[in-house]
Amino acid sequence: MFTPESQFNVEVCFSPALYPSFHKAEAIVLVTDILRASSAICTAFMNGVEKIIPVETLEEAREYKSKGYLVAAERDGFVMDFADFGNSPFNFSAETVRNKTIVYSTTNGTQAIHLATGTQRVIIGSFLNLTASCNWLKSQNKNVIILCAGWKSKFNLEDSLHAGAVVEQMLQDSRFNTICDSANASLDLWKLAKSDLLKYIEKTAQRNRLRKNKLDDVIEYCLTPDITDIIPVLENNYLTYLK
Amino acid sequence: MFTPESQFNVEVCFSPALYPSFHKAEAIVLVTDILRASSAICTAFMNGVEKIIPVETLEEAREYKSKGYLVAAERDGFVMDFADFGNSPFNFSAETVRNKTIVYSTTNGTQAIHLATGTQRVIIGSFLNLTASCNWLKSQNKNVIILCAGWKSKFNLEDSLHAGAVVEQMLQDSRFNTICDSANASLDLWKLAKSDLLKYIEKTAQRNRLRKNKLDDVIEYCLTPDITDIIPVLENNYLTYLK
Repeated sequence: MFTPESQFNVEVCFSPALYPSFHKAEAIVLVTDILRASSAICTAFMNGVEKIIPVETLEEAREYKSKGYLVAAERDGFVMDFADFGNSPFNFSAETVRNKTIVYSTTNGTQAIHLATGTQRVIIGSFLNLTASCNWLKSQNKNVIILCAGWKSKFNLEDSLHAGAVVEQMLQDSRFNTICDSANASLDLWKLAKSDLLKYIEKTAQRNRLRKNKLDDVIEYCLTPDITDIIPVLENNYLTYLK
Repeated sequence: MFTPESQFNVEVCFSPALYPSFHKAEAIVLVTDILRASSAICTAFMNGVEKIIPVETLEEAREYKSKGYLVAAERDGFVMDFADFGNSPFNFSAETVRNKTIVYSTTNGTQAIHLATGTQRVIIGSFLNLTASCNWLKSQNKNVIILCAGWKSKFNLEDSLHAGAVVEQMLQDSRFNTICDSANASLDLWKLAKSDLLKYIEKTAQRNRLRKNKLDDVIEYCLTPDITDIIPVLENNYLTYLK
């Protein structure tokens, strides 16, 4: 419920396909794609990447490649043959990315980023920058929408759990509240999962997809909270970070 | 996880806007709209209605009215001025509906019913017919999709909790399993809420909408499990019940 002192609303959108019902020009959007795009983007900025250009289609990514850009591109977890690397945060090491511009296209995450343009600000959230991103959101005095990248338009648990972790921190500030059922559901799922997140995540479809494809080495890392204060932000058509 | 003996999948679709990613011609779809359309439809059949014609638009509803049909039509909880009554299950009393054909148009529920045509079968579920609908689904040896009507394309808690209650019963039969994140989330939310469903539902947006509009007298009734064995089913363009 809204109390007299609560002025700002926190909402959670479970899928890019639902985003049109949430879009508000005056809100800040936090995009999350825990396994693995938003964790990889945070890692790239931790390791000194200069810019990331998120592109929606593989055609765009291929075109940038032909112009000499470093390109990260994956679909369904697999690196595209023309790309320099894929979607694992471990690909975005300092040796590979420092002071570089990277073009990035993924199954779900980069589409979600584009969808949220036309709002006050689009930032990239993950467990890695959880508290830093929440503290910054609290300082902005704006409504907040957490946009889960999901999986091919479907709800996914890992993004929703991260959304719940953000909601929990935001509601600790009495100026923020929620009347959004998705935000309340995320918060309850997060409270259920947080004491042993790695165990809870065992049941998710993406965890099983990554295991099947032997891409699950990143999961524990992607669920680690607060290893950085860096907050990637969309400026025009590329990602940089808040200074 | 799928075990060797599990043959059928149970999925939950949180919103009609996500349904294109779920649609499968060989599946059975259970449509749920707890507050209030699917509870009202179950009640109407309990009280002897002969047929219900679900229509998507108010124009269609108005046209049926001009042809002399009994029409139930609401938007955002309010009865339309041309309609005989709205969306409260209490409107569908035996005196009003017995042996009648009713035309019915609601904010979310009737659109969801239309969306699911082209599958094996579309049934209407609610807490009122929870166990009966699950037992029937178990007997059909088909994949099951639970389609939540949601609220104007958004996720809602009350439909998702009902979905979780259905998932819980379905998974008690080892031939049914799920690898669907929405089904797992629904199940966990249901387990959290079921010991005091009325209290849990206090936090939902629709509960607050109905209270504000003084339409909340139906909530306790709509959350009552297993008061009927009747299962409404879509046949061509109208609802009847499984005999």
